[in-house]
Amino acid sequence: MAPAYKLTYFPVKALGEPLRFLMSYGGIEFEDYRFERENWPNLKPNMPFGQVPVLEVNGKLAHQSVAMARYLAKQVKLVGKDDWEDLEIDAIVDTVNDLRHKIALYHYEQDAAIKESRKEPLFKETLPYYLERLDTIAKNNNGHLAVGKLTWADLYFVALLDTMNCYAQMDLTGNYPNLQTVKNNVLSVPAIKAWIEKRPDTEF
Amino acid sequence: MAPAYKLTYFPVKALGEPLRFLMSYGGIEFEDYRFERENWPNLKPNMPFGQVPVLEVNGKLAHQSVAMARYLAKQVKLVGKDDWEDLEIDAIVDTVNDLRHKIALYHYEQDAAIKESRKEPLFKETLPYYLERLDTIAKNNNGHLAVGKLTWADLYFVALLDTMNCYAQMDLTGNYPNLQTVKNNVLSVPAIKAWIEKRPDTEF
Repeated sequence: MAPAYKLTYFPVKALGEPLRFLMSYGGIEFEDYRFERENWPNLKPNMPFGQVPVLEVNGKLAHQSVAMARYLAKQVKLVGKDDWEDLEIDAIVDTVNDLRHKIALYHYEQDAAIKESRKEPLFKETLPYYLERLDTIAKNNNGHLAVGKLTWADLYFVALLDTMNCYAQMDLTGNYPNLQTVKNNVLSVPAIKAWIEKRPDTEF
Repeated sequence: MAPAYKLTYFPVKALGEPLRFLMSYGGIEFEDYRFERENWPNLKPNMPFGQVPVLEVNGKLAHQSVAMARYLAKQVKLVGKDDWEDLEIDAIVDTVNDLRHKIALYHYEQDAAIKESRKEPLFKETLPYYLERLDTIAKNNNGHLAVGKLTWADLYFVALLDTMNCYAQMDLTGNYPNLQTVKNNVLSVPAIKAWIEKRPDTEF
């Protein structure tokens, strides 16, 4: 019997989507459990460190989205060929996460004045700084973000892109042709394409 | 000839110290290059995504502190016995990092009013929430933070502890006997003890 995978998350892409991309890529069947926001206060106390997504594999519970993505990447063979390649992949994933975090810090700011003060540094400095460097990396890696081939770093970035674009209210890859190539390379994988066609339609 | 390792970082423990612990544990000789803060503007443009620590291994440059720590953990055999154990270790490391980040957000806040407003949520809610759960995990894992034995999750936590304590201006393990056991288990490893005796004395 195949392992039973169950992903529990809000009804959004965000931190759940890299996991859904990875399982779809590898043909891993999974229950895509999306709870309503009104149920979160009931669920939260049962979640490790009060956070989601969580992933159940054969009844064992895992947490921390990047750690789970790395685990799934090993199962579906989207990792490097040695420890150094895995280090390069991990470093890119953490860099993409840094970028996501900086965008989220702006997006989620409740205080209008503070949010406004973060706008110019984010859009004029941080985003171009990160995106230019990631674009150069993609250029030097044959349309991928690490080690010159398709890895979970590419799936991680592309799966998060809708959410980052929604938070920033712009297309992050708009001016970066090599990042567009990364995106196209991932979205043209048949299993990913099939997932995107069947997934629920959500804003981010 | 043994590989040549060079760590480049500020003259502090912080994000460099888990890497120093891991190399010391495994008997990896390394150049511990600590630059003065006044030289940072000259160095920053040459660093990947403008950040340190970076690690050179035989002339190849790596970045992202957690990714580098994972790489070193593999070299010094402080990882799990299978992919699931590595997932459990990775999840704890990311959780410790979340905790570090929340403490740093308080510590580094420049605006006195904002900093004051973050004090009670951090000290009355966030810290007890994380530390109670980590303490229970340590209790259930034989004085370790994952998989019931010494792994890089333990070294990661204990290496960061001085810095987190300094930022929070308290001993985070004070009320948590099982976290004290984790600390003692790491600090009693002879190679770690020797490193701590010879390392430069810094505030954090």
